[in-house]
Amino acid sequence: QLHGTAVVAKKMTALDAGARATELPPLTAAGWAVVSDRDAIKKNFNFANFNEAWSWMTAVALAAEKLDHHPEWFNVYNKVEVTWSTHDCNGLSLKDVKMAKFCDEVAAKYLKK
Amino acid sequence: QLHGTAVVAKKMTALDAGARATELPPLTAAGWAVVSDRDAIKKNFNFANFNEAWSWMTAVALAAEKLDHHPEWFNVYNKVEVTWSTHDCNGLSLKDVKMAKFCDEVAAKYLKK
Amino acid sequence: QLHGTAVVAKKMTALDAGARATELPPLTAAGWAVVSDRDAIKKNFNFANFNEAWSWMTAVALAAEKLDHHPEWFNVYNKVEVTWSTHDCNGLSLKDVKMAKFCDEVAAKYLKK
Amino acid sequence: QLHGTAVVAKKMTALDAGARATELPPLTAAGWAVVSDRDAIKKNFNFANFNEAWSWMTAVALAAEKLDHHPEWFNVYNKVEVTWSTHDCNGLSLKDVKMAKFCDEVAAKYLKK
Repeated sequence: QLHGTAVVAKKMTALDAGARATELPPLTAAGWAVVSDRDAIKKNFNFANFNEAWSWMTAVALAAEKLDHHPEWFNVYNKVEVTWSTHDCNGLSLKDVKMAKFCDEVAAKYLKK
Repeated sequence: QLHGTAVVAKKMTALDAGARATELPPLTAAGWAVVSDRDAIKKNFNFANFNEAWSWMTAVALAAEKLDHHPEWFNVYNKVEVTWSTHDCNGLSLKDVKMAKFCDEVAAKYLKK
Repeated sequence: QLHGTAVVAKKMTALDAGARATELPPLTAAGWAVVSDRDAIKKNFNFANFNEAWSWMTAVALAAEKLDHHPEWFNVYNKVEVTWSTHDCNGLSLKDVKMAKFCDEVAAKYLKK
Repeated sequence: QLHGTAVVAKKMTALDAGARATELPPLTAAGWAVVSDRDAIKKNFNFANFNEAWSWMTAVALAAEKLDHHPEWFNVYNKVEVTWSTHDCNGLSLKDVKMAKFCDEVAAKYLKK
C-alpha cells in the first residue's frame, strides 16, 4: 500500500531528562502547557475565522502525515486546541517538539502581520 | 469583506416539536446521539487512516463554510467525533440536520465500498 | 440538496468601463495580467514548498466555495498559476476582483514575513 | 527543517522496459494516457462538483506530500487534469505508477457508488 512505504517506521523514544530541560522551556514560553494527567503538551490557537483556522490545520495535517505523527485536535470555528503526545513511547518525543514548533511557525503567519 | 457577502445572514430558529419528530429519528437511526446536557447531536466516525479522515473533514469543512454553519469536532488519526448545534438558537436547527446528513453521505463513500 | 441552498444564485454582470478603470489597475500593479485572448486575469504565485502552496490553495478553495465562484488553477509543487473569469458574463466581474484580492491577501501572509 | 526529514531522499530511476510492459497497460486501460511529447502520464477526472473535486485533491495532496512526489494538476470546478512524471529521472518512475493508482482508488469512491 501507498501509506507507510515512504516513511521508515522507527519507534520513537521518550525525551530524556536532558532533552526535556532543553526542549520544553521554549515551548512553554510559547504558550504550550504540559498536560497534568499524562505526558503531553497542549495549546489553544485562535484565528480570525474558520478560513484561517482550516488553512492552518491543513498545513499541520500535511506535515503530520509526512512525519507520520498526528495531532489530537479539537476545532470549533476559529479556535483549535492541539495536543501532542507520542503513542509509541507513551509520552513526549522529539516528534512532538518538532510538530509543536511547526504549529507555531505557521500560526505566526496568520496571527501577526 | 469577502466572508459574509455570499451568504444572507438570517437567524436560525430551533426545530419545533414537529420538526424534531420528523428529523431526529432518521439521524439517531444513523448513529447520531442526542447529547445529554445540551441540545446537540454527536457522532463518531472511524476511517481507515488519517488520509481518509482528513479528506472527509475537508468535504465537511467546505460545506460548513458555504452554509456558514461550522462543526465542533475532535480528530485523532482516523477518528473524528463531530457535534452539531446552533449557537443562534441555543439548540438544534435545520442547519444541524442538513450538515449531519451531509456528514453521513460523504462518509458512506469512504466507509462502504 | 446542501450545495446551492446557502447562496442566492444571481447572474453576475461584466464590469463596465468605469469599474474596469477603478478595479483593474490595482490588480495589474499587484502582478495580475489581463489574458490576451479572453477577458480574464491571471497571476503566478511561488511559495516556499508544497505545504505552503497547498495551504494557500485551501484558503482560496474555501472562499471560492463560499462565494460560489471558482478559479481555474494549475499547481506543481510550490507554484500555482491562477486565472479568474466569470462564466455567467463571459468576462470579468466583481467576483473576480474580490477573489483576486483575496488571493493576494492570503499569499502576503506566506510570502512576506 | 521539518520537511524532508521524514523521507529518505533517494533518486528515483526511470521504469525499465520490463517494468513499463507490466505497469503501464493497466494504467492506460484505466484511462491514463501517455503524453506524446514527454515521458509522462495524464488523466482527466470529472467529479460531481467542486466539493468532491477538492476533497479528492486533498487526499492526493496528502499522499503526494508523504511520498514526496507531487502532481502537475489543473482544476476548474469539478474537473481535474492530473499529470505524473518524475523530475529526477526525466520520465516515468515507480512513484508515478503508485500515485496514478492511488488517484484512481480514491476517485472510485466518489465516481461510483
